[in-house]
Amino acid sequence: MIRRLAIIGVGLIGGSLARALRQAGFCASIAGYGRHRATLQRARELGVIDEIADSIPDAVHGADMVVVATPLGAMDATFEAMRGHLDQDAVLTDVGSAKSSVVRSVAAVFGDLPSGFVPAHPIAGTERSGVEASFAELFRDRRVIITPTAQSDAGAVQRVTEMWEVTGAEVVEMSAEHHDQVLAATSHLPHLLAFGLVDTLARLEDRMEIFRYAAGGFRDFTRIASSNPTMWHDICMANRDGILPMLARFEDDLRYIARAIENGDSAGLMAVFERAKAARDQFVG
Amino acid sequence: MIRRLAIIGVGLIGGSLARALRQAGFCASIAGYGRHRATLQRARELGVIDEIADSIPDAVHGADMVVVATPLGAMDATFEAMRGHLDQDAVLTDVGSAKSSVVRSVAAVFGDLPSGFVPAHPIAGTERSGVEASFAELFRDRRVIITPTAQSDAGAVQRVTEMWEVTGAEVVEMSAEHHDQVLAATSHLPHLLAFGLVDTLARLEDRMEIFRYAAGGFRDFTRIASSNPTMWHDICMANRDGILPMLARFEDDLRYIARAIENGDSAGLMAVFERAKAARDQFVG
Repeated sequence: MIRRLAIIGVGLIGGSLARALRQAGFCASIAGYGRHRATLQRARELGVIDEIADSIPDAVHGADMVVVATPLGAMDATFEAMRGHLDQDAVLTDVGSAKSSVVRSVAAVFGDLPSGFVPAHPIAGTERSGVEASFAELFRDRRVIITPTAQSDAGAVQRVTEMWEVTGAEVVEMSAEHHDQVLAATSHLPHLLAFGLVDTLARLEDRMEIFRYAAGGFRDFTRIASSNPTMWHDICMANRDGILPMLARFEDDLRYIARAIENGDSAGLMAVFERAKAARDQFVG
Repeated sequence: MIRRLAIIGVGLIGGSLARALRQAGFCASIAGYGRHRATLQRARELGVIDEIADSIPDAVHGADMVVVATPLGAMDATFEAMRGHLDQDAVLTDVGSAKSSVVRSVAAVFGDLPSGFVPAHPIAGTERSGVEASFAELFRDRRVIITPTAQSDAGAVQRVTEMWEVTGAEVVEMSAEHHDQVLAATSHLPHLLAFGLVDTLARLEDRMEIFRYAAGGFRDFTRIASSNPTMWHDICMANRDGILPMLARFEDDLRYIARAIENGDSAGLMAVFERAKAARDQFVG
């Protein structure tokens, strides 16, 4: 059970977590803080939070669980604002899509890593954002990756694990560095390619006509290019070290494909396409 | 009305066209030819075709409409086999995803472009293939691009247009070269990127783990990597001239994104993401 949950950033993820914990009866009270008062009022109207906090210190005061669900770009300032205001036994976690940068940020602000700090990342989301889009089932059957630091104590790890399991998620543990490599491959790079392709086409002279002939495959392929630009900017900047090597590897493979087409290398091109189809059919389903 | 329709290649597209025309009562009889006898037997059992032709000459004999729906890689041999066997007034069309290469192929085989020849491309399909996956509604509310040659006569263009309109499609006309550029941008390049990305990930050492953390966005983004490798090999080779310049342009844009991440160029990265989101929301919906 959580006595008092503080959620900093009541959007799709923070709001859905609050809804899921409340629905499970896992949480006595929920305080929310965010930059926009109107959002917080809406969150209270929707029954997502009980209390609107006027400040971050106000939100975390007395909280036994503090969840930072702001965009990655706002985390430095968020941690800074709560320094000196956390309860002695408070567990501090976040939901950022990149983990090494969050660990660096906490270390920089707090001087060392608090034993109650357990970074986490729920692998869930939609293209929509905001508390209006939140729903209690968002995390059901999804995975949450936690990346405890060397300083995280076992009790805090246990509390964060329990909280996410209550939402219906499966919790897995890995290092922050490994998390960042895995997510660069399966999430960050695909988003970059989708944004990049749509932008390439949007800058063609006959873009109106180009998009008119886009079929279902293009729609699926580019759906993630409708995601929030600020959020993805923040992720790219935060996970530079995970993304750039993966992007370089992909660029090499793309050049191989281009050369195969240019040189009429049927065997080379077929090998790529067949490996890809086999992998997708086997692993993604 | 079509008196006798000959379909060479009774797969998803050829089979769906036959079903749609039959359902509309637009076709007195349908003969099918393909490499695999079992497929043709199945097509007849399913009521997709009336008659199994033993050869291409046999199929096109007496046909007033001949539709070549084979993979692009089989078109040279298909046109070669029907040379000298087409009825004087037969209309000849195809459904290839690249058009300049089909025009080149017909010109090479027939010596010049027959006046009854009208290239076409229905912008429709699924990841599945084969006659079992065919259905009459596949073309409803889709676009069919026809690319008449300088030799195509107006009557043949009219016949092909009517045939596709009967299936519920909207028919639009453009040059083969322009078709190939538009499709390179909206279809061929996205398929290359999806195949390429899945292959890049499949060749990582920890690929099992990588794919385990793939979420919904990845699933959508890579759906087209489950498409038929041979079909996409053929398209890439056939539309080399449309694809390579578009791919080069995308590679440049991707390098711009990589440099923006590397240099912490927030404004540059945000501009790409915002243009892409705006374009997708506006044009694709």
